[in-house]
Amino acid sequence: MFKIKSSTNLLKNKMKINNYFFLIYFISILYCTLFAQVKQVISPKINPDNSITLQLLAPNAKEVKINCDWNVDKSLWSSNQPIMTKDKDGLWTYTSPVLPSEMYNYWFTVDGQLVNDPQNPFTIRDEAYKISYFIIGNGKADNYKVSDVPHGSVTHSWYKSIGFDKQRRITIYTPPNYETSKIKYPVLYLLHGSGGDEDSWFNLGRATQIFDNLIAQKKMKPMIVVMTNGNYYQTASPSQASEDFMLPNDDLPYPGTFETSFGDVIKFIDKNYKTLNNKQNRAIAGLSMGGFHTYCISANYPNTFDYVGLFSPAISYRKKGSAKVYENLDEKILAQKKNGYKLYWIAMGKKDFLYDNLLENRIKLDKINFKYQYIETAGSHTWNNWRDYLVQFTPMLFK
Amino acid sequence: MFKIKSSTNLLKNKMKINNYFFLIYFISILYCTLFAQVKQVISPKINPDNSITLQLLAPNAKEVKINCDWNVDKSLWSSNQPIMTKDKDGLWTYTSPVLPSEMYNYWFTVDGQLVNDPQNPFTIRDEAYKISYFIIGNGKADNYKVSDVPHGSVTHSWYKSIGFDKQRRITIYTPPNYETSKIKYPVLYLLHGSGGDEDSWFNLGRATQIFDNLIAQKKMKPMIVVMTNGNYYQTASPSQASEDFMLPNDDLPYPGTFETSFGDVIKFIDKNYKTLNNKQNRAIAGLSMGGFHTYCISANYPNTFDYVGLFSPAISYRKKGSAKVYENLDEKILAQKKNGYKLYWIAMGKKDFLYDNLLENRIKLDKINFKYQYIETAGSHTWNNWRDYLVQFTPMLFK
Repeated sequence: MFKIKSSTNLLKNKMKINNYFFLIYFISILYCTLFAQVKQVISPKINPDNSITLQLLAPNAKEVKINCDWNVDKSLWSSNQPIMTKDKDGLWTYTSPVLPSEMYNYWFTVDGQLVNDPQNPFTIRDEAYKISYFIIGNGKADNYKVSDVPHGSVTHSWYKSIGFDKQRRITIYTPPNYETSKIKYPVLYLLHGSGGDEDSWFNLGRATQIFDNLIAQKKMKPMIVVMTNGNYYQTASPSQASEDFMLPNDDLPYPGTFETSFGDVIKFIDKNYKTLNNKQNRAIAGLSMGGFHTYCISANYPNTFDYVGLFSPAISYRKKGSAKVYENLDEKILAQKKNGYKLYWIAMGKKDFLYDNLLENRIKLDKINFKYQYIETAGSHTWNNWRDYLVQFTPMLFK
Repeated sequence: MFKIKSSTNLLKNKMKINNYFFLIYFISILYCTLFAQVKQVISPKINPDNSITLQLLAPNAKEVKINCDWNVDKSLWSSNQPIMTKDKDGLWTYTSPVLPSEMYNYWFTVDGQLVNDPQNPFTIRDEAYKISYFIIGNGKADNYKVSDVPHGSVTHSWYKSIGFDKQRRITIYTPPNYETSKIKYPVLYLLHGSGGDEDSWFNLGRATQIFDNLIAQKKMKPMIVVMTNGNYYQTASPSQASEDFMLPNDDLPYPGTFETSFGDVIKFIDKNYKTLNNKQNRAIAGLSMGGFHTYCISANYPNTFDYVGLFSPAISYRKKGSAKVYENLDEKILAQKKNGYKLYWIAMGKKDFLYDNLLENRIKLDKINFKYQYIETAGSHTWNNWRDYLVQFTPMLFK
């Protein structure tokens, strides 16, 4: 007979520190005795060859799939997902192929129900979903790990948006030693995509780990990074908002309130943080919808940003919006060209569904001889690309 | 035929902003067409009488229970849990009794598997578990809601602990307008219990919402609140640590490193924040294990804290520890009495498993005529008590 090693140890330790858990301990012993489904469950287990083994004890289940992003389609949402194998004791097991260094996401689908790996304490939120994750190191994903280097701080704050006439939540990274330092810092405004919010770069993007690591490696200048909530229909991420979980209203055009009132964000940051308050020390970048926000804001706020980054941008989909901020964008871009800037950087995956859309827009930029750096990578519209782009983009800033 | 209203709306909105989701949309239409399990699922639904209805679509499941804390035993871990009812389309439904104002936690157990409510985006983490929650307002739980009042900031930072010889993560609440204010603030050090970490008061404790609300109501003085990680075997909460998910080692006595090196925390805060750096403006409080830490630290750091709060404290369980910080505690308490303090506040639930343990310790304090305020409440060793205690304790500070 096997033992549920991890659970039993957990419970033994808890007993020592908290008698409250006696009850659970006895229930679990009773359960083990009655059903003899006693197994050593370790999940995820990173094997020496960098394959991964996942396990789930689910004796009653008929089929367990793994929704993961190391499958053929590299998408959590693909229908083409690995199926786990059940042994006689009801333990489901799966071993992956050898995986390159990356941060990987998954959950189990047990007879149609989404289940987070109960053995894996590492989870992140994507919109309303909780996703289990692990990091395969010894490569590029080492930048996503918490390393023993000086750490910056992450602050969740609220700014008063005149444009929205509301307080809105905002996440701010300050570099190591910011609190006691006498110097002023440049600022990167970093925007999320559709379905994300002010927590996304911090959670799914591993932005704070990337900044800590790149700054320690002296690849990136110490800077303040500001992560906004770009959804016009929210004031904050779901768990932090006073309103219910909000979704866009189908029947209204995009009001452009976020882009229009971006000046409120800049004012708040310049008032409350030790910033170098000028164009040369201000950058803006965003992914997908945030790439469009970046495109739009950098054009609508002339002479404000010397560094612009569009990560897999979704440039066209606000065309029908009625807001002034969307009007005459071509003219505004032309003015932006005349005003000048240090870097306009665009990155896109070859398999991204927005590839053709960007191509159209690049042709438009080329026609007016608008200079930009263009990087084409493998992959599609996913966080592993956006983390990569952040690692590539930030070292070019303020130099 | 019904419609999956919430999901379909979600998908329609996503389509508008992101073609990527077309795939899911078609898969879900295909699924609906094939299986005709098309239902309007809204969960949780707070009914007009303050009962709650939960729903889960799980056609293949044989039994769905709700692990919840509004059951008879008021514990997520009780075996005495409500069972949901399945209809012919595989939709499981449950309606609770009328619930008093509180923050409630739950998850589904589907044929033995823990499943978070897929319709509810509001979840929090307790150790490695993700828990769905909702708040019934119009009563005391209004203090746990994000209100439209001025908000403080929450900063996740790292301090260098000389005692641990490590950087350790720390959560700091600063009150509204702290950033631009010229005044200095008193400090409350607020400690978590066993199984918790530097995120617990912030997540499960709704501490930031409580502070924002009480400060807006002028019941609580604006103050800095510092939430540490009190686990000697961790540097940070699981998702933020460089080490793997660590548990205490059975074979070692408690080293007392956290309590011994608490001075490192105070030094860090006084160096980096605008603090009133003296006994009159310093408070310390903690729940369960953190109650013992508070008891121990306030006695070992003489003339440091004028306000001390023990919430359901677990006073005795470090007796066998070999660290100096645990030695001669009775003498240190006697010295603390002689040095004086403004408030020593103890709260305990009548059904708490630590009730008798505290009674023993209160008798010891009474014998030496050590003055304390004692509050006995209903309930046991749970977060609804600790949130209540925080709401009662903070208004008494620095007045």
